Amino acid sequence: MKIIERAEIEEALVGLDLLPLIQDAFMSYSAGRAVVPPVGELLLEDGEVHIKYGAIRGDRYYVIKVASGFYGNATRGLPSSDGLMLVFRSDTGEPEALLLDEGHLTDVRTAVAGAIGARALARPDVERIGVIGTGTQARLQVQHLAPLFETRSVVVWGRDPIRVERYRTDMSAAGFLVEVARTPAGVAEAADLIVTTTPSTEPLLHAQDVRPGTHINAIGSDTTEKQELAADVLALADVVVADSLEQCRTRGEIARALAAGAIGEDVIIELGELLAGEVKGRTSTEQITLFDSTGVAVQDIAIATAVMDATAR
Amino acid sequence: MKIIERAEIEEALVGLDLLPLIQDAFMSYSAGRAVVPPVGELLLEDGEVHIKYGAIRGDRYYVIKVASGFYGNATRGLPSSDGLMLVFRSDTGEPEALLLDEGHLTDVRTAVAGAIGARALARPDVERIGVIGTGTQARLQVQHLAPLFETRSVVVWGRDPIRVERYRTDMSAAGFLVEVARTPAGVAEAADLIVTTTPSTEPLLHAQDVRPGTHINAIGSDTTEKQELAADVLALADVVVADSLEQCRTRGEIARALAAGAIGEDVIIELGELLAGEVKGRTSTEQITLFDSTGVAVQDIAIATAVMDATAR
Repeated sequence: MKIIERAEIEEALVGLDLLPLIQDAFMSYSAGRAVVPPVGELLLEDGEVHIKYGAIRGDRYYVIKVASGFYGNATRGLPSSDGLMLVFRSDTGEPEALLLDEGHLTDVRTAVAGAIGARALARPDVERIGVIGTGTQARLQVQHLAPLFETRSVVVWGRDPIRVERYRTDMSAAGFLVEVARTPAGVAEAADLIVTTTPSTEPLLHAQDVRPGTHINAIGSDTTEKQELAADVLALADVVVADSLEQCRTRGEIARALAAGAIGEDVIIELGELLAGEVKGRTSTEQITLFDSTGVAVQDIAIATAVMDATAR
Repeated sequence: MKIIERAEIEEALVGLDLLPLIQDAFMSYSAGRAVVPPVGELLLEDGEVHIKYGAIRGDRYYVIKVASGFYGNATRGLPSSDGLMLVFRSDTGEPEALLLDEGHLTDVRTAVAGAIGARALARPDVERIGVIGTGTQARLQVQHLAPLFETRSVVVWGRDPIRVERYRTDMSAAGFLVEVARTPAGVAEAADLIVTTTPSTEPLLHAQDVRPGTHINAIGSDTTEKQELAADVLALADVVVADSLEQCRTRGEIARALAAGAIGEDVIIELGELLAGEVKGRTSTEQITLFDSTGVAVQDIAIATAVMDATAR
């Protein structure tokens, strides 16, 4: 069994075009060509562990991913989140590799999903990208949007001024023109493609904040508890897309809006259907569109397989 | 992260007294000191994968175990079952070790559970051990019963005469007096402690076969489909013990008997309660007792922790 450490994984990712691979994975998922059991959850005293696993029919590998968040780790000088992926042969079940990516592959495949959602739904002439949050996804999402849109203009909001300033510095160095908003509403006012990336459990954006023509990538909320968007934002949206309808029934922004009765399940489109051209997404420049990303095991299979191929060379 | 191969694991197990450790784990479980989410299942075209995971409050490690069965592997010269365990620190979530035991630790902890069940429920003066099946558990269960009972007399039944003969030869060499029965009923007639170890989906033993005073360890059935005992055997039993009441609602012999309406949930005792002395087991020599083992994550935690300790020395 191959053990692949994070440094080697990061190196393997350089130059890989993951977008078409993960797009295919979403299409396989929505076409019923994948087996994705419910997310496993282990809730401990000091943290929580999620297990995402699944298989795509015809694929060489099935993948079991373990991701953990231990919130007291910061005080010990350890990262709060961690993760690894186990890669097995689909035909014999033999373990092929342990990817000790420390959660990096999850970060990257999530950013790629955001890019896929935005490419499918946002207006092509996006003028400014708005970012709620200042962490890993706040950076990676913007970096993965950059090849798809001409704009390099970013407006950011975060709770912690020090982290906001660090974000501005880092992203400016990476070639973006970064402005800072004083409120989440200020981000929505200044941007037409918004990415929400926080672990908030209280809505940060409300319907009154969102301008016509906006696309929102709702990335931060992936559990039953987290929520960045008020339910009325989803009610306002003309197009609501789930990465997985099944997962979004119980997780993420869609679950909250469904529970609040703000939207019905019938309005929800699944990303893979949209990508396959089976349903329409945005049909006018004035529409508000929304992509809710909760993270699906097929993304993990796609990125793990890409790493396996790249490291086998 | 430590990678521990099977050979090192087998060496570490030598001389370890696992019975009290796994007994403690069952008691923690039944006392509500463990978190054991539902078993994860991934059903593929060529095989199936089970994920058992959990944590015991106050324990150093939590464990995620992956076990697979790929039934076409035999034709490729590969073992049909495989397995590994991931060991993580409970306080920080950091991965500590990957135990590449190929399913051996599951085999051993299952045999130890059988020994625990039999010690708690069988008459101490067992005269002959009856074994249904000729595979790994048919051997390991008997080996783990040997230190607890004086008898070395075994009666076995299996479908395949060649495998039966191999079993007889191997177990005779290990010091047992092995007779061969022509039917499962013949085993029940000749034995007062019966261990069922096959993957059968059809009942092999019926109420009319089972003598008063018998204890049965029902080991083979651990899914919704497998069944070795007719529901009337459970109805006949005076004491029915589950390793996990929650798991046995949907898996193993108890699930089948519940579904058939042969027993009610109210008669079922959980092993950890019995071990803690909270409920009574056998109260007379004539009673029929039954232990249904479906395999609980706390057993995996106990044996993995023991391996960690033994290999750290």
